[in-house]
Amino acid sequence: MHGEHTHIVDAEAISAIVAKVGLGQLYDLTIERMAAVLTGGSGATVEMKQRDGFLLTTPQLGLLEWMPAVRHGATVSIKMVGYNPHNPVKNQLPTILSTLCAFDADSGHLRAVVDGTFATAIRTGAASALASRVLARPDSAVLGLVGCGAQAVTQLHALSRVFPFAEVLVCDTDVRAENSFAARARLPEGVVRVAALHEVEELADVLCTATSVAPHEGPVIRGTALKPWVHVNTIGSDMPGKTELPLDLLRKAVVVPDHLEQARAEGDCQQLAPEEIGPPLSEILQDTDAHRRLSPVTTVYDSTGLAVQDLVMVEVFEELARELGVGHRIAIEATADDPQDPYSFLPGAVTHSWAARLGSRS
Amino acid sequence: MHGEHTHIVDAEAISAIVAKVGLGQLYDLTIERMAAVLTGGSGATVEMKQRDGFLLTTPQLGLLEWMPAVRHGATVSIKMVGYNPHNPVKNQLPTILSTLCAFDADSGHLRAVVDGTFATAIRTGAASALASRVLARPDSAVLGLVGCGAQAVTQLHALSRVFPFAEVLVCDTDVRAENSFAARARLPEGVVRVAALHEVEELADVLCTATSVAPHEGPVIRGTALKPWVHVNTIGSDMPGKTELPLDLLRKAVVVPDHLEQARAEGDCQQLAPEEIGPPLSEILQDTDAHRRLSPVTTVYDSTGLAVQDLVMVEVFEELARELGVGHRIAIEATADDPQDPYSFLPGAVTHSWAARLGSRS
Repeated sequence: MHGEHTHIVDAEAISAIVAKVGLGQLYDLTIERMAAVLTGGSGATVEMKQRDGFLLTTPQLGLLEWMPAVRHGATVSIKMVGYNPHNPVKNQLPTILSTLCAFDADSGHLRAVVDGTFATAIRTGAASALASRVLARPDSAVLGLVGCGAQAVTQLHALSRVFPFAEVLVCDTDVRAENSFAARARLPEGVVRVAALHEVEELADVLCTATSVAPHEGPVIRGTALKPWVHVNTIGSDMPGKTELPLDLLRKAVVVPDHLEQARAEGDCQQLAPEEIGPPLSEILQDTDAHRRLSPVTTVYDSTGLAVQDLVMVEVFEELARELGVGHRIAIEATADDPQDPYSFLPGAVTHSWAARLGSRS
Repeated sequence: MHGEHTHIVDAEAISAIVAKVGLGQLYDLTIERMAAVLTGGSGATVEMKQRDGFLLTTPQLGLLEWMPAVRHGATVSIKMVGYNPHNPVKNQLPTILSTLCAFDADSGHLRAVVDGTFATAIRTGAASALASRVLARPDSAVLGLVGCGAQAVTQLHALSRVFPFAEVLVCDTDVRAENSFAARARLPEGVVRVAALHEVEELADVLCTATSVAPHEGPVIRGTALKPWVHVNTIGSDMPGKTELPLDLLRKAVVVPDHLEQARAEGDCQQLAPEEIGPPLSEILQDTDAHRRLSPVTTVYDSTGLAVQDLVMVEVFEELARELGVGHRIAIEATADDPQDPYSFLPGAVTHSWAARLGSRS
């Protein structure tokens, strides 16, 4: 027996993939693959396990979580996510670090290990684009971004693959983030305009809230002067107590969670009773009339992030890395020629001296 | 910010480590580290999460499980284990494939990815050695092995680091396994003797059952003519319904599980009521008088396999790989210089063309 190789898709390989494929095409591919998986397209049956993890208190407060998913007959994925707020100052590392593993669902072989940070950024943008494609008006011309951090960049880029925005209005409680946004989004002068919150709310056809508001300090918008057909993607509500939208708005809108239980635990759906929550996105995607019915009314996509979205990403990056021949291929698993001999992958000389030791303490 | 490297400890690196350190010393080191972690030595506080996984039915029946553990202040480990009985015939791969990941408990950084198959074999042997060191008579001279597969080899090798065995008696329902055992255990003629089951039972001071008996088809020994001070390690009982020892023996012996809940679900402790089960090994190890009290009576170590044992292994192999400079060091995580810019790890040219696309469908 010969061990199979594991494809390591490192930061350098991701760079090479983006350079070759193009960032826009990567969003397009992600949106299509995510739609296929969420609608059960190409016979895909997916399953997820509850996100779980360790609360770390030594030496400092942090979290390490895992998010497992399976596409039956194809791939088991597990995303590991570390959340350590002290990282930038203490470890010169980002707060969030993440890696993805993909296992062959037929053999259990570790097929790929992929950076998870960039993949998570792309898939969170792509999920909003997919949701907005069915929930917002197709001719949406103004995008409003409340919160101008890294997530706002990927929201804008993914959504602009689906809508012909003429204008992007942004605001943030941090003036430096507002002013640096256009450059970080790689947009020329004039496309992005920093605006007051009330103006962003009044003019947006599609609105994204992607803030780091503290638990119990929301909402981050007023929601009283929105266009009646506005579609809102709420991205920042991702832990107990942390919500971004006013209750009045949620009660008036059709609220579509990515995952009901998770959104009720960590998303804006925390504020709602079960009967006030609409169908999850996967259900809407399977109903071809939903688009027509929902785009004229106020809608909210409550995005908390799904393990199956990460599964899509690890499959996409593994496939592109193989196609383009980037990354490292390493035979990690020690597979024995003789299943009854735990040492058969070792060179003979390593183990031949065992006899000398039996019967004598050493 | 610069991404840190992940150490990939592949099959070749494991070979190099064993060649350099020696198999015997690797068992010794594992036994000592496992003792330290289980007794909370060097201030180690460990925690485990319930083993969980996916039942795979497409294309064939299989399992993919994960076993997470943390040594607070140091390492989070997760072992992924694939169990696919069709692998040898269909995929030319072993039934069980396994990999270990180690994350820094302070930063969430993926520090190492290590082959898990060999590590699991070593740690299962080492766990029996550690248990037998406190439960069996120190002058135990005869080792009995019921079941002559791969696990029997590592049981023998680990136990022989702790006891000065003069003789090893083996038996298996498969004659070829009996006859090939001495060669697989790298022992010269005369040390291992194939014997009838009743003789193995009568003569053993330490007995290991490591069989693949089918669920509900145990026990694999009679247990009526054992030495009164025998210590039995039961290794093969590892799933609901699968047990190896007779109920009479279990009721007469002090039964020490590696983990109470897990042993009651999948080990020989399935046969016992809670009040018939003794303290877990970690408790015995912390009681320095236990050795004296327990070695003259019949004892059973019910081994089901612990995530913290895997944590010990990933730490040991990562440490040795670093010391010896073997394996591959790869910067997997894409860490951005600017936390507000999801693309800052990419070469500038890759993203500078975004502007052209905004406002036009593509």
